[in-house]
Amino acid sequence: MIGVGVIGYGYWGPNLVRNFYETPGAQVIAVSDLRPDRLKLVKDRYPTVNVTNSHQALIEDPKVEAVVIATPVATHFELALAALQAGKHVLVEKPLASSAQQVLRLIDAAEKARRTIMVEHTFVYTSAVRKIRELVDDGTVGDLYYFDSTRVNLGLFQYDVNVLWDLAVHDLSILEYVASQKPVAVSATGLAHVPGRSENVAFLTLFFDGPLIAHVHVNWLSPLKVRRTLVGGSKKMIVYDDMEQSEKIKVYDKGITLKESANRENVYDVMVGYRMGDMWAPNLDVTEALKVEAAHFVKCLANGEKPITDAEAGLRVVEILEAASESLRRRGEPIALRPNGGR
Amino acid sequence: MIGVGVIGYGYWGPNLVRNFYETPGAQVIAVSDLRPDRLKLVKDRYPTVNVTNSHQALIEDPKVEAVVIATPVATHFELALAALQAGKHVLVEKPLASSAQQVLRLIDAAEKARRTIMVEHTFVYTSAVRKIRELVDDGTVGDLYYFDSTRVNLGLFQYDVNVLWDLAVHDLSILEYVASQKPVAVSATGLAHVPGRSENVAFLTLFFDGPLIAHVHVNWLSPLKVRRTLVGGSKKMIVYDDMEQSEKIKVYDKGITLKESANRENVYDVMVGYRMGDMWAPNLDVTEALKVEAAHFVKCLANGEKPITDAEAGLRVVEILEAASESLRRRGEPIALRPNGGR
Amino acid sequence: MIGVGVIGYGYWGPNLVRNFYETPGAQVIAVSDLRPDRLKLVKDRYPTVNVTNSHQALIEDPKVEAVVIATPVATHFELALAALQAGKHVLVEKPLASSAQQVLRLIDAAEKARRTIMVEHTFVYTSAVRKIRELVDDGTVGDLYYFDSTRVNLGLFQYDVNVLWDLAVHDLSILEYVASQKPVAVSATGLAHVPGRSENVAFLTLFFDGPLIAHVHVNWLSPLKVRRTLVGGSKKMIVYDDMEQSEKIKVYDKGITLKESANRENVYDVMVGYRMGDMWAPNLDVTEALKVEAAHFVKCLANGEKPITDAEAGLRVVEILEAASESLRRRGEPIALRPNGGR
Amino acid sequence: MIGVGVIGYGYWGPNLVRNFYETPGAQVIAVSDLRPDRLKLVKDRYPTVNVTNSHQALIEDPKVEAVVIATPVATHFELALAALQAGKHVLVEKPLASSAQQVLRLIDAAEKARRTIMVEHTFVYTSAVRKIRELVDDGTVGDLYYFDSTRVNLGLFQYDVNVLWDLAVHDLSILEYVASQKPVAVSATGLAHVPGRSENVAFLTLFFDGPLIAHVHVNWLSPLKVRRTLVGGSKKMIVYDDMEQSEKIKVYDKGITLKESANRENVYDVMVGYRMGDMWAPNLDVTEALKVEAAHFVKCLANGEKPITDAEAGLRVVEILEAASESLRRRGEPIALRPNGGR
Repeated sequence: MIGVGVIGYGYWGPNLVRNFYETPGAQVIAVSDLRPDRLKLVKDRYPTVNVTNSHQALIEDPKVEAVVIATPVATHFELALAALQAGKHVLVEKPLASSAQQVLRLIDAAEKARRTIMVEHTFVYTSAVRKIRELVDDGTVGDLYYFDSTRVNLGLFQYDVNVLWDLAVHDLSILEYVASQKPVAVSATGLAHVPGRSENVAFLTLFFDGPLIAHVHVNWLSPLKVRRTLVGGSKKMIVYDDMEQSEKIKVYDKGITLKESANRENVYDVMVGYRMGDMWAPNLDVTEALKVEAAHFVKCLANGEKPITDAEAGLRVVEILEAASESLRRRGEPIALRPNGGR
Repeated sequence: MIGVGVIGYGYWGPNLVRNFYETPGAQVIAVSDLRPDRLKLVKDRYPTVNVTNSHQALIEDPKVEAVVIATPVATHFELALAALQAGKHVLVEKPLASSAQQVLRLIDAAEKARRTIMVEHTFVYTSAVRKIRELVDDGTVGDLYYFDSTRVNLGLFQYDVNVLWDLAVHDLSILEYVASQKPVAVSATGLAHVPGRSENVAFLTLFFDGPLIAHVHVNWLSPLKVRRTLVGGSKKMIVYDDMEQSEKIKVYDKGITLKESANRENVYDVMVGYRMGDMWAPNLDVTEALKVEAAHFVKCLANGEKPITDAEAGLRVVEILEAASESLRRRGEPIALRPNGGR
Repeated sequence: MIGVGVIGYGYWGPNLVRNFYETPGAQVIAVSDLRPDRLKLVKDRYPTVNVTNSHQALIEDPKVEAVVIATPVATHFELALAALQAGKHVLVEKPLASSAQQVLRLIDAAEKARRTIMVEHTFVYTSAVRKIRELVDDGTVGDLYYFDSTRVNLGLFQYDVNVLWDLAVHDLSILEYVASQKPVAVSATGLAHVPGRSENVAFLTLFFDGPLIAHVHVNWLSPLKVRRTLVGGSKKMIVYDDMEQSEKIKVYDKGITLKESANRENVYDVMVGYRMGDMWAPNLDVTEALKVEAAHFVKCLANGEKPITDAEAGLRVVEILEAASESLRRRGEPIALRPNGGR
Repeated sequence: MIGVGVIGYGYWGPNLVRNFYETPGAQVIAVSDLRPDRLKLVKDRYPTVNVTNSHQALIEDPKVEAVVIATPVATHFELALAALQAGKHVLVEKPLASSAQQVLRLIDAAEKARRTIMVEHTFVYTSAVRKIRELVDDGTVGDLYYFDSTRVNLGLFQYDVNVLWDLAVHDLSILEYVASQKPVAVSATGLAHVPGRSENVAFLTLFFDGPLIAHVHVNWLSPLKVRRTLVGGSKKMIVYDDMEQSEKIKVYDKGITLKESANRENVYDVMVGYRMGDMWAPNLDVTEALKVEAAHFVKCLANGEKPITDAEAGLRVVEILEAASESLRRRGEPIALRPNGGR
């Protein structure tokens, strides 16, 4: 039985507490938050869980073996570092930290403490994203041509991060998991519409060595809520629409067929034909992603396994976000990404 | 009665011939095409129309007063120039020419010949786009915040142009008409998936002086057909979905409200609130855009009026396409646009 | 503060307990259920609430002033009667009872005990249905022409009732509330596909004096989940789609216009024209219906007011269900409804 | 080469003329219509086709071997009879005639004249409906449980027929083709909202011997256009949505599973489980239905084959429409159908 402490009971914290509360092998020991009314809520719902306004007290609680961090991004690094240094495992809400530099220091601290860090790339634990990965891995999709994701709605303007760090982080974590390829450069554009706040609309392109291009489109100021990812491959194309109540994933047997033309002198003379085949929507498991994720975390701690969304995965995403924010300030100028470090 | 000659009876030509055939004040005199089977088709449908495989003969026909050009983009400049120099008015399929330089020469030729050039920015003549312009012009939408357009489908890979010149040209012509603002720079990214062909997927951001940002997203390799433009303003937000059979335009009374916080010392302390109001879908006229366009062209020639989509409009779009193609080659590096020349 | 006891903690009971728990003026005293595991669930979530496997004990508890019944339909009558006879107010899940005869006896018992009965016609407490009623009442819709409701999905086959009593009851309660007209006859058809079970697909038509016709279409065996009601009027037509996440109600300014023809000798010669106007989707409050309903129940008890969904409303719905089941057995033969008793 | 004459150039006639004009093996000889402006339209489009305002002249034209009838329903019988008696083959727009009695007389006349009658049940010639039949015939769907079709829109109020004869005829012709079962009784309800006109909204249930039930729902006064048919079977369920631009047919591997309970004494004790599997949308040929139909007609005449939609199919549909209209007048009272005569 692993004792779990959760720091932060704001928007996402309640989901984490609820899921760890119901995860076999875990026991929620304590929850900390700075706001008394939030702590009262915890106490009403879970009378057996301790509450405290001191994250330090929670971290130091000897019954807490794993610390779950669900606080604003700017505080992730400091809290995770303190927990690791206190000898605790940590699970950190996305993004893992505010900079690649911070992530590298967390990786270092975890190694020294021989403890596990996992980042909460929640979508990686949905049946939809796992199915896409499966269809890529088993060759169904063929060579990846593009990954094109739109995540827009009328959303909360975050204080401490721009829309890339709030929304695109999801798409990048999905891409990171599905594509198994490391981008070589990023170009991003965007705009802030509220004085003094960061960008609320942004567009991001990732370049790869090879035929893949990725694009992410995020907006806090859209009248429609859209959550749609297209994954185009040489053999199949997938539409993942998370707003659909069923059939979240549709696999299209559509695409182009290339045939070299008879004119052998012209090497470029390729005929482009079309393939219009069936569509197929695999039935998906409906287990809540957080439930799968909490169980995975507990299992990793119990067995000493490396989590799927380990700190390296968190690093790859944060590196892109950092470079993208830089490119965004320069109106799309491409920024090269660290060449090594792929998985 | 204005005598009209149409060069090119491929994909779009038949629509132009049919509409001019039925436009009061116009008479289709001749159609030219290089392919005998296309000319036979014309003759079967319109026995009274002359057909020829020589565009020169068509241009020189004294009964032809206006030449409509519906040929591949690479030929627009030469054909339009010849027609103007022969003293004919011209209507050219989008985009007007292959470069801004060419457009400037056409403008010059038209002035010398005292003839009219109009470019076929068809969407400008739809009731949907006209309604959006009306809602922008009368202040309903408020300050423009973003213009975000997606135009993707499994489409014909063009031989002579990339997907920007084929599809984004539509979005840019809509933006050009609706926003009445001139962009100052462009950043574009994209990729070609067929060896020897130009880019089949592309993303384009336009920067403006002020709070507007525009983004266009085009793809010839999408399993879904999407034709959707979001126009976000400070007062209202519009969703224009051209795939809807009715309610193509939805106007949302949604957005954010800004309130300076009581804390006067902190100038950045702006409270962001949300406004969730009604949605309204204005009833739209269903007249075919080309019919409206043909009548507008005929009326301009008859009255000596300047067309809505004149060569200057064509120039503004071609300038963006040219700069975007340059940016695309440089992986998104921003390219400044000619400062003057707005309307 | 009104003490509330809830009988039944199966599918719907937890929603009732949760809402009464949070309703000001109410206090959940006790929950009863026959299954120990369900009682354990209650105790885990609400440690201060008493649990018992005896509904009798709950009814007799002097701190319980109002009894909420969320048990299978067949038990409604007996439980409600016992509660009323014990001097308690009652709120009964839909449908109120298994027969009109039972409802009449409950009405009688309530009058004798001077206690309130309310039936849980939940949809009546949604902002969508209230908006429709408002648009009917204020004349926006004009004369009602039709009410046409579809409620199908792959649903639980109930043991004790057919699909009319399980699903159509919702549509009838909406119709009852919105239309303020009493039907004069009903024709219903349907079929049972599982041996020994009651009908899982059914269609029901209600006839009125005047231009209104109502139709309800229910199915437990549909691959799609549909929750759509069309309300057609002489002035406007409403589409209420409960599966939409926003814009649940769309009001269409569409319809026909009638004009007597010039030919005065022929009284039947009416010209039918069409009106194609705007569509409008009013913004709706998103408060949970059960929260509104619980507050209404508490307010009625406190002030001695008659509930909107009183036992008379429950009677009108049960009368239709009874007649419809009879018609269904006779393959659609129309069954007349009790003439008086409208509201 | 079969000479074809078309009577009626109103709403549907132009589609018939266009398709027969382009069908190999057929030659459109003449078109008749009472309105000079319609005949002028024919002449403009097809200068080689003769036009006449006399259907008699058309029928008597020796070059006309087959007469296509696209006139109001009330005239079908008389025109078809005249054509058959003149020794011509006939193709009649749906429904074949105004009564079963008339259809029987046409069958008789055709046998005497040794000529072919075909009825234009157009949907039978769509790739969607053919695919459904294929999936029923090859056992994919399993036993048919229900056929549930909705066909509503803001439509033309017909003068001479009610909405059943105008719209439900399509659904009945699809059912007739797909199900290969003959209904034993019909119950229908509906209402007329325009004084002096027939019913503009109607609902129809068909009963069969066995587990199948069919329902058709038609309305000329709906703000939405819906064309949706659900075909539920014991193994698969099909949704056919004709408003979809692609994926018109979706095949769901969803349903119930029945298991007899261990309790052998209770024959009624059947456990109902659920099956939630994949969805599959077969790619469909996009050939226009009328083109397929015209080619089929020509082939039948050339080879002496019996058309798929022969007069017997027309009879089965007209019998249902006749009985349904009778039931509708009696508010849903079930009307038995002729027992024999299935296919």
